[in-house]
Amino acid sequence: MRQGASPPPPIGYVPWDRPSPVLDALGGFFRHDSDPLQIGFYVDQHKVNARGFLHAGVLATVADVAIGHALAESTDPPTNLVTINLSCDYTGVAEAGTWVDGTIEVGRVGRRLAVGTITFVAAGRSIGTGRGLFLPV
Amino acid sequence: MRQGASPPPPIGYVPWDRPSPVLDALGGFFRHDSDPLQIGFYVDQHKVNARGFLHAGVLATVADVAIGHALAESTDPPTNLVTINLSCDYTGVAEAGTWVDGTIEVGRVGRRLAVGTITFVAAGRSIGTGRGLFLPV
Amino acid sequence: MRQGASPPPPIGYVPWDRPSPVLDALGGFFRHDSDPLQIGFYVDQHKVNARGFLHAGVLATVADVAIGHALAESTDPPTNLVTINLSCDYTGVAEAGTWVDGTIEVGRVGRRLAVGTITFVAAGRSIGTGRGLFLPV
Amino acid sequence: MRQGASPPPPIGYVPWDRPSPVLDALGGFFRHDSDPLQIGFYVDQHKVNARGFLHAGVLATVADVAIGHALAESTDPPTNLVTINLSCDYTGVAEAGTWVDGTIEVGRVGRRLAVGTITFVAAGRSIGTGRGLFLPV
Repeated sequence: MRQGASPPPPIGYVPWDRPSPVLDALGGFFRHDSDPLQIGFYVDQHKVNARGFLHAGVLATVADVAIGHALAESTDPPTNLVTINLSCDYTGVAEAGTWVDGTIEVGRVGRRLAVGTITFVAAGRSIGTGRGLFLPV
Repeated sequence: MRQGASPPPPIGYVPWDRPSPVLDALGGFFRHDSDPLQIGFYVDQHKVNARGFLHAGVLATVADVAIGHALAESTDPPTNLVTINLSCDYTGVAEAGTWVDGTIEVGRVGRRLAVGTITFVAAGRSIGTGRGLFLPV
Repeated sequence: MRQGASPPPPIGYVPWDRPSPVLDALGGFFRHDSDPLQIGFYVDQHKVNARGFLHAGVLATVADVAIGHALAESTDPPTNLVTINLSCDYTGVAEAGTWVDGTIEVGRVGRRLAVGTITFVAAGRSIGTGRGLFLPV
Repeated sequence: MRQGASPPPPIGYVPWDRPSPVLDALGGFFRHDSDPLQIGFYVDQHKVNARGFLHAGVLATVADVAIGHALAESTDPPTNLVTINLSCDYTGVAEAGTWVDGTIEVGRVGRRLAVGTITFVAAGRSIGTGRGLFLPV
């Protein structure tokens, strides 16, 4: 059981429980149990690059899943969305073992387009941002 | 052993052998053994979203690793690079079980910036593109 | 004199006075005289597309100039920057004659990379965002 | 008359004649008269930044207009499109007076999304690329 390898998450965070084979394969993702715009994860052994830092692709994967889910759930009933563009900036590094906070901002969920962003913070410093465009389907 | 779940890759492809904990966790990635600008993978069970199609984040992860590696190896000696921006467009879907081809284009590896793109094709149709900006370190 | 065609700007805004041949050609750009992170402009006759709405390219031009300037001036002495990536999302339209507010956020000005964003609001609604990556030179 | 300030365009190019107030304000844009995927312009006095090089925003503006037009005209009847994302990489500089070639690639014009790219070359070297996402309307 992969998630067992990391310490428990900060108070208020529970394991990510939406079906996602990719996140299951990577393991160790969490959502805040009362704030739908907060997610988090540890930079564990499956999430690092060859240098031992958080992998850019992992941040992109988390961005896509977290933004997409938050946008989808921001409407009632939820909106089915498919990603059409995902763009991430990497402005800092996160070392193995670090807890990373992700804060989602719902930009817009319209009839023809949905947009959202996520900002990642590790050890008190911004390490990157992601932005996703989605089409309702 | 995860890679065992998929059929063998097309002729000429060998397992990706550069250290990458993320790709190891996802499994099933291949590189062409004589063309450094070709990679490929099967959309196996670890690479799909909740709908059963290739996950946008996986394509981003592959884009980052494949472009970064090709740019790094395009110089002699290789250039160490860190990702500063990764942007992917998703213009088609790939179903579970499909083989996806990735073709890298080395845009530029300069003293202060490196740029490259990758185009993904599945079942004869373009399904998306990725573009990465990297800083030499 | 082009700027004469539009009404005066809101209180607190003064004409953009940093040398910029492009903005001079387009005309009608303003900065807030005490808040370096606020700019604005009218969607005048030179800034519309064939449909009569604000042109996507104009928003990109403003984003580049405004973010670049704000990042450059956020350090002492100012940092010379060149744009390496500019990405804009368009989530709403602005009709001819509308005043558009731009709010800049300085993401980071490092030794090797600078990042900032701008959010555009017209008639009380977000119409788009821009994000620029810059290299110090 | 602004366009008069620059030399005549290379053989085969004619003035851009599609209505565009922004390009009219900037002046000096051309299209190839038999190849709908080729455009070009001189880096004249209205298109430079404070350093005297081609302005990043101008390249974004040209990218938006040229890609959007080529995608729209690639279907019969033409498709009306609105820009939803525009992203440009800047990998080289173009000095004042230089002729810049733009080569458009039509990625896809679907029922719900259109994508295209443009590559800019000046003095034999790539200076940047643009990529636009558009929604049919």
